[in-house]
Amino acid sequence: MNCFGTLYRTTIFGESHGIEIGAVIDGCPAGIPLCEDDFIPDLDRRRSGTRGTTPRKESDLPAIVSGVFNGFTTGAPITVLFKNENVLSNDYKNLITHPRPGHADFVAQVKYKGFTDYRGGGHFSGRITLGVVASGVIAKKILEKENINIQASILNIGGENDKNRFSEIIEDALRNRNSIGGTIECKASGIPIGLGEPFFNSVESLISHAIFAIPAVRGIEFGDGFKAAFQKGSEHNDLIADRNGKTVTNHAGGINGGITNGNDIIFRIAVKPTSSISSPQMTFNTETQKIEELVIKGRHDACIALRVPVIVEAMTALVLADLSLIHKK
Amino acid sequence: MNCFGTLYRTTIFGESHGIEIGAVIDGCPAGIPLCEDDFIPDLDRRRSGTRGTTPRKESDLPAIVSGVFNGFTTGAPITVLFKNENVLSNDYKNLITHPRPGHADFVAQVKYKGFTDYRGGGHFSGRITLGVVASGVIAKKILEKENINIQASILNIGGENDKNRFSEIIEDALRNRNSIGGTIECKASGIPIGLGEPFFNSVESLISHAIFAIPAVRGIEFGDGFKAAFQKGSEHNDLIADRNGKTVTNHAGGINGGITNGNDIIFRIAVKPTSSISSPQMTFNTETQKIEELVIKGRHDACIALRVPVIVEAMTALVLADLSLIHKK
Amino acid sequence: MNCFGTLYRTTIFGESHGIEIGAVIDGCPAGIPLCEDDFIPDLDRRRSGTRGTTPRKESDLPAIVSGVFNGFTTGAPITVLFKNENVLSNDYKNLITHPRPGHADFVAQVKYKGFTDYRGGGHFSGRITLGVVASGVIAKKILEKENINIQASILNIGGENDKNRFSEIIEDALRNRNSIGGTIECKASGIPIGLGEPFFNSVESLISHAIFAIPAVRGIEFGDGFKAAFQKGSEHNDLIADRNGKTVTNHAGGINGGITNGNDIIFRIAVKPTSSISSPQMTFNTETQKIEELVIKGRHDACIALRVPVIVEAMTALVLADLSLIHKK
Amino acid sequence: MNCFGTLYRTTIFGESHGIEIGAVIDGCPAGIPLCEDDFIPDLDRRRSGTRGTTPRKESDLPAIVSGVFNGFTTGAPITVLFKNENVLSNDYKNLITHPRPGHADFVAQVKYKGFTDYRGGGHFSGRITLGVVASGVIAKKILEKENINIQASILNIGGENDKNRFSEIIEDALRNRNSIGGTIECKASGIPIGLGEPFFNSVESLISHAIFAIPAVRGIEFGDGFKAAFQKGSEHNDLIADRNGKTVTNHAGGINGGITNGNDIIFRIAVKPTSSISSPQMTFNTETQKIEELVIKGRHDACIALRVPVIVEAMTALVLADLSLIHKK
Repeated sequence: MNCFGTLYRTTIFGESHGIEIGAVIDGCPAGIPLCEDDFIPDLDRRRSGTRGTTPRKESDLPAIVSGVFNGFTTGAPITVLFKNENVLSNDYKNLITHPRPGHADFVAQVKYKGFTDYRGGGHFSGRITLGVVASGVIAKKILEKENINIQASILNIGGENDKNRFSEIIEDALRNRNSIGGTIECKASGIPIGLGEPFFNSVESLISHAIFAIPAVRGIEFGDGFKAAFQKGSEHNDLIADRNGKTVTNHAGGINGGITNGNDIIFRIAVKPTSSISSPQMTFNTETQKIEELVIKGRHDACIALRVPVIVEAMTALVLADLSLIHKK
Repeated sequence: MNCFGTLYRTTIFGESHGIEIGAVIDGCPAGIPLCEDDFIPDLDRRRSGTRGTTPRKESDLPAIVSGVFNGFTTGAPITVLFKNENVLSNDYKNLITHPRPGHADFVAQVKYKGFTDYRGGGHFSGRITLGVVASGVIAKKILEKENINIQASILNIGGENDKNRFSEIIEDALRNRNSIGGTIECKASGIPIGLGEPFFNSVESLISHAIFAIPAVRGIEFGDGFKAAFQKGSEHNDLIADRNGKTVTNHAGGINGGITNGNDIIFRIAVKPTSSISSPQMTFNTETQKIEELVIKGRHDACIALRVPVIVEAMTALVLADLSLIHKK
Repeated sequence: MNCFGTLYRTTIFGESHGIEIGAVIDGCPAGIPLCEDDFIPDLDRRRSGTRGTTPRKESDLPAIVSGVFNGFTTGAPITVLFKNENVLSNDYKNLITHPRPGHADFVAQVKYKGFTDYRGGGHFSGRITLGVVASGVIAKKILEKENINIQASILNIGGENDKNRFSEIIEDALRNRNSIGGTIECKASGIPIGLGEPFFNSVESLISHAIFAIPAVRGIEFGDGFKAAFQKGSEHNDLIADRNGKTVTNHAGGINGGITNGNDIIFRIAVKPTSSISSPQMTFNTETQKIEELVIKGRHDACIALRVPVIVEAMTALVLADLSLIHKK
Repeated sequence: MNCFGTLYRTTIFGESHGIEIGAVIDGCPAGIPLCEDDFIPDLDRRRSGTRGTTPRKESDLPAIVSGVFNGFTTGAPITVLFKNENVLSNDYKNLITHPRPGHADFVAQVKYKGFTDYRGGGHFSGRITLGVVASGVIAKKILEKENINIQASILNIGGENDKNRFSEIIEDALRNRNSIGGTIECKASGIPIGLGEPFFNSVESLISHAIFAIPAVRGIEFGDGFKAAFQKGSEHNDLIADRNGKTVTNHAGGINGGITNGNDIIFRIAVKPTSSISSPQMTFNTETQKIEELVIKGRHDACIALRVPVIVEAMTALVLADLSLIHKK
């Protein structure tokens, strides 16, 4: 289901080359100032346009068509729409018979019995995250009132940690008609003690649920993450230092027993290299039933990770806004 | 909420030192043979009892009190109960004022305004996973009919990959009154193409949601996981080799675009070292408001990771049984 | 939450005088033929335009902006949008201070702290049921494949059962600047045995949940309904007559123990008279804090019941399509 | 699904002749005083024992096995269990082949493919409402803190409104080996303005959803209910009389646009006559495939309506406690 959240609920819809993409955001409290311009900064971060990101240019102008009146949210569901304009659907015709390796083309054809909209990846396109970013902007406004702040940034791309060398790495990938992955870190600060529930609605459960909804994510770790498997209890435990629960270290990433402990929530995610690369690959021709060479046309990101931080922030905001509203009960 | 699943839904309840622990499992189809003995093998794996696991001995005998008639499931909710017997609650009295570092003691006191059952960790205890394992046994029976099989095992503990050296590592931790973490790998085979939904109900979203409900999990990665962030598209993409979607490699861990692709689902998780260690630690005394030494009594696992594989299997089975039932619509 | 359904889920949004109204319909199977024209007959029934219904004229042309490709549903969420065109918002300005008796004006102002869109009832307008009718059309197509058919019609209006006298009754109400209520009966046939669940997801629970989402509904009864309270068991029980569960009578309205029994589902609902009447009424002026006369401007239905049957069908279709998809698991 | 509620969630389980019946109640705030004795008054009202109710005698002693510590709720899920003791299962053997008219016997056999527990109606038994009453007691405690009070009572049985004649009517039904229905009214007072949501989560939607989960309910109406269909707007509209939204009349039953308006919530329900009557009836023998006479053994209520008011209160409390917790966000 294309729907997420308990009290703050986001429903996303659309296709890469469909008419409109968007989101319905339900459960936003009344009285929050909101206009189309508020979405622009985060949409700009998502759109990117720098080297290494897709040459498809979309204005991505959001239209609020419900839930806002006289510049404030009304408490009714907010609908934000985006038109698809720069569509070159012919590039994708060969993908019906030649599913791209690493892409959802094949599973989509099977799952939806051949009725899937294959153009530009259809509903599986990363373009659908436009609606997520829009909902994230609203969620951040809810969190702002609680002094909760979320920031995600690239740690490394293509195995390179030195930001000065990123453009070099990207040019290299472009030259080789290949793609590269990356790692992103997200930090949420100003977190109160007590968000989340033990077990099934642990903060990690909800954040990871949202994060793995982002295409191309392969892993997530909180606090020390996978390193914790190599540590001793005496190394990993965070000493509680004051009545507000502040800890001297933050190996736990701000969460104990599934509940926020008042320290920063910290997690990292792995983004795989874009599956659509322009160098030739072999794939199974579903018509001839033979393995054949595929050359992918269309416009793709050489390093999709570059555009992911703002989506990570949005997903985290969706979860924290929901938990924050629940927490007040 | 202590509830998980759409058509196959598990509700868990109980406390470490409460009267009974258990689960209500709703949505199980009628006609599946089920008796108390069916739970024993997986409960035994969870109980362990080997060196490095808690000396608390519980018989953990399951009682089915609803949903089964004449040896078969009836379609009504199945309730499985476990009695707590071997309870030494006095060991925990000092934790009211001295929250254990790395444990949920502190957040539980704050979140539940001092009313939490602190004995043995209360509802935050890993003991609550008894109900998860019980539900997992039933879910595995549903999956068996679809020829889906799930297996999880320890990859390493305390940084050691050589299974021959595990007992050595554990003895070392016990001698030092410390604890160690570990890594677990899970593989689900016999998976049809098409389980899961794009975005919010991606297979990774649902599995990670369930897995992070297991206490002490710090990270999860699918397929190549975090390594994928360092790869190129040409390295990571899996070539589709036949009409059934079988791929030559499985870097994707059996999932594309959130949907199963017919190959094995593969993921790994990081388990942190048990937070309750018996060597002295410093903590914040919430009464005196000073940092003081804490010596944790009670009985704890030196390496909780040893008992986690069967819980990982259970959580994975919960997700796949649910998706499998939904898939038939 | 403006969201309903488990596997077939409808999210509605919009305001009476907002930019667009619509619905996102998630969980529709792929491969169902669908185009804008398919919505017209039911939208026409909802729009009406006959005497006794609002003089506001809207073209109500649906636009499918996602989830349909080459004339078939794709399995991705379907979004249907309607533009508001014939908007006279000035008529409603006095309602900010003068809440209409029997209307949501007052509760909306309080609940949403003064930020509600008051124009034409805002999100509380019956106009939002456009999205419900659209979703109902799709649900009916799902049910058609199962040979399930739903039909609702007016039993009486203003206490009059004789359809020949309806226009007379309506003219009378219009002349008196008043409004009248009505009763509607709905019958669903072709129902298989076994839809629904005992207790919380009984068929009556789900249908009544959906039906009371229609503005102005005051009651619902299944089978013999309130008359059953006056009957004896020997009168009310339906004799089962064959192996398919067909009963000689249908006092139960096709449901036993919350589960469909293979006979027609039959229920009736009461629709209250439209609260917005044009004859003067007294109300509480929230500014002056005094009781004052209110004359309602704007365009309203003298007998909203006339437009409700198609919405009742849609709501019933939403429930039965969902149960039908769940039933196949 | 045997589960109801968003933030206050009740899961019920059990069979009439199974081992234990009960409920898991999740989302109850910490710090509410609760012990087994608190359940007794409402359980006593449900048990009845007066003429016209079943001669089956059960002690119905509740056992709280989780979620309560030192006499207070802890915030963890509360589990309440009841043992079945007075079980005479032989009475029900003939129902496998001879489904009772008006009962769920037939649909249960079909839906659950012959695996249903037929003894005493199995999971379809009204006895399962024990768990609902238990959850209702807790919900009432949550509402008490908000000064919300709920009371349901019998309006009439067997068509008789005069309470002095009730015992006469019942004796008559018993003498004739027949059963009778009844009508119940419920009133909730102390209601704040603003509970509920427009459309799908209207207060009427949620209350009716819960109420139709009670076996034998055939109809529900709010405020003037079905009479409203015969009224004019000028008769039905409630004049708002003060700043707190108090209305001079209460034709609306305390709800406008799905939202509570600060006045008493008032609704009535119709309870059909018990389907199990001891006079002979004809039914379809599923073995011989012929219509044959059935004489129902077992112990049954001649007027189940007598025991329903406390269950109506409980269901209403479940809804209002949930809405009340959501309202605080």
